Amino acid sequence: MRKRFNCYIEKLQDKITNKIGDLDPDARLKEDLWKREGGGGGRTRVIENGAIFEKAGVNISAVHGELPVSMKNYFKVKTGQFFACGLSLVIHPKNPFVPTVHANWRYFELYNSKGDIQDQWFGGGQDLTPYYVFEEDVRHFHQVCKKACDLHNEDFYFKYKKKCDEYFWNTHRDEARGLGGLFFDYLRPNKKFSIEKWYDFITEVGNHFLEAYVPLIEKRKNMSFSESQKAWQEIRRGRYAEFNLIHDKGTLFGLKTNGRIESILMSLPPRVQWRYNYQVKTNSPEEELISILKNPRDWI
Amino acid sequence: MRKRFNCYIEKLQDKITNKIGDLDPDARLKEDLWKREGGGGGRTRVIENGAIFEKAGVNISAVHGELPVSMKNYFKVKTGQFFACGLSLVIHPKNPFVPTVHANWRYFELYNSKGDIQDQWFGGGQDLTPYYVFEEDVRHFHQVCKKACDLHNEDFYFKYKKKCDEYFWNTHRDEARGLGGLFFDYLRPNKKFSIEKWYDFITEVGNHFLEAYVPLIEKRKNMSFSESQKAWQEIRRGRYAEFNLIHDKGTLFGLKTNGRIESILMSLPPRVQWRYNYQVKTNSPEEELISILKNPRDWI
Repeated sequence: MRKRFNCYIEKLQDKITNKIGDLDPDARLKEDLWKREGGGGGRTRVIENGAIFEKAGVNISAVHGELPVSMKNYFKVKTGQFFACGLSLVIHPKNPFVPTVHANWRYFELYNSKGDIQDQWFGGGQDLTPYYVFEEDVRHFHQVCKKACDLHNEDFYFKYKKKCDEYFWNTHRDEARGLGGLFFDYLRPNKKFSIEKWYDFITEVGNHFLEAYVPLIEKRKNMSFSESQKAWQEIRRGRYAEFNLIHDKGTLFGLKTNGRIESILMSLPPRVQWRYNYQVKTNSPEEELISILKNPRDWI
Repeated sequence: MRKRFNCYIEKLQDKITNKIGDLDPDARLKEDLWKREGGGGGRTRVIENGAIFEKAGVNISAVHGELPVSMKNYFKVKTGQFFACGLSLVIHPKNPFVPTVHANWRYFELYNSKGDIQDQWFGGGQDLTPYYVFEEDVRHFHQVCKKACDLHNEDFYFKYKKKCDEYFWNTHRDEARGLGGLFFDYLRPNKKFSIEKWYDFITEVGNHFLEAYVPLIEKRKNMSFSESQKAWQEIRRGRYAEFNLIHDKGTLFGLKTNGRIESILMSLPPRVQWRYNYQVKTNSPEEELISILKNPRDWI
């Protein structure tokens, strides 16, 4: 399974970065191959200052070795080797009418002292962070998420949409980071779903990613925007940075386990503003966004 | 002592914000008085988009009540009322040749069930975060810190300078946030120093703050700078935001104990950039800064 999923994310990374290149001919992709002390490494691909994409990172990594102490405590195991691989992406478009998107698909194995698999699971998801709400866009994204889920279990979309709203909650701001999508973790083999069936599910979600997101880029990328709309995007990207640096488990985990800093923090927005006690105008599109972030909606 | 110190920080806030107003006639000060549910409140003063100061916050607060659970665990007490007051300031100048400065002076009391003082201490410090290194400026700041310390104990400067370098360490970047100053905490009454003597020490440090910092503004505020020097300041301010959101105990404490978010996060820089794997040029002034941040120096 580790080979199979690793092979999958390698191809998916190619597919997504090729699409980014097609959409934005100005975008020059920078690729960094890196090795991890202790085992494994990754392939980081980043675009900056494109015509469409202000900053986009699409990274894969496959790491293994002895579990760091902090992870042992976290997983409540005393000894053990682990393997983890995954694809992480964050795309920050230039135009404030095109949402930021984040996705992650990962696989984890823990071994006992004999080297047998002791535990294994998939995790991940994908979620949208718009700066202006076009209901049809958000609905499209969620509908494609649901379509992928429904092919495996009709409860999954509702279950993982709810988990997504819960996870991407900026507690100190009492608002969601964005308008949701899917979030799942610890998808372990059980009576109904073997690890192969979970593989089929998570790769289904991954295969639907471009269908969920690309139409939103194509529809909005040429809309003209004002300086103040760009500033609003940068203010909201401040909240994005707050979530990632204060709350996001993946980020903190990476920082604590000596991950490659530049690959972990590629998720941070290109430009951010923090203004003191910034207030939106009554009945403005900015106020509409805030009101939905404070009370997550059903989109289907 | 709580009345005495609270009175002191009220006057110090006036003194500092008056000076800011004198230095920057374009700066319009915004004042917010706020109350805390559970007891106490504060007076937040912020300037944005001045001619000299891009963003500056000088806040005082005095809060009291039942200790929140997270603080009980932190201080290892089971029950108890507390009182805490302090002044916190962060000044982000516009010109990249003027350093950012941070300072904090605070006093804390814990009570037993009879309402008697069970524990009390002062804490705080002040530290400089330049974007370009002018050795004479950094030396001046440290010399004034030392002068204030020496009036009370000749070991204090060296002791608290070292603590400052240790505290403001961005572990995940393996570099200091800035070029240091003073940092002290848990200054409790002991054989040599009564709480009154600690009061004399901490107010001495507070009284020297403007003398340490203002000459640096006056010397550098009119220096011309390029777009790329401004961008460098914004990139470094990204590291400042990382420290405050990932590592700073005061910030995390505030967020976890339901403090006033906008007052806590006023420390965040006005504008920040995160570029993927940004590298400075060899033998550049930017490289000089990095090399000193990686190997903190003695300035006296």
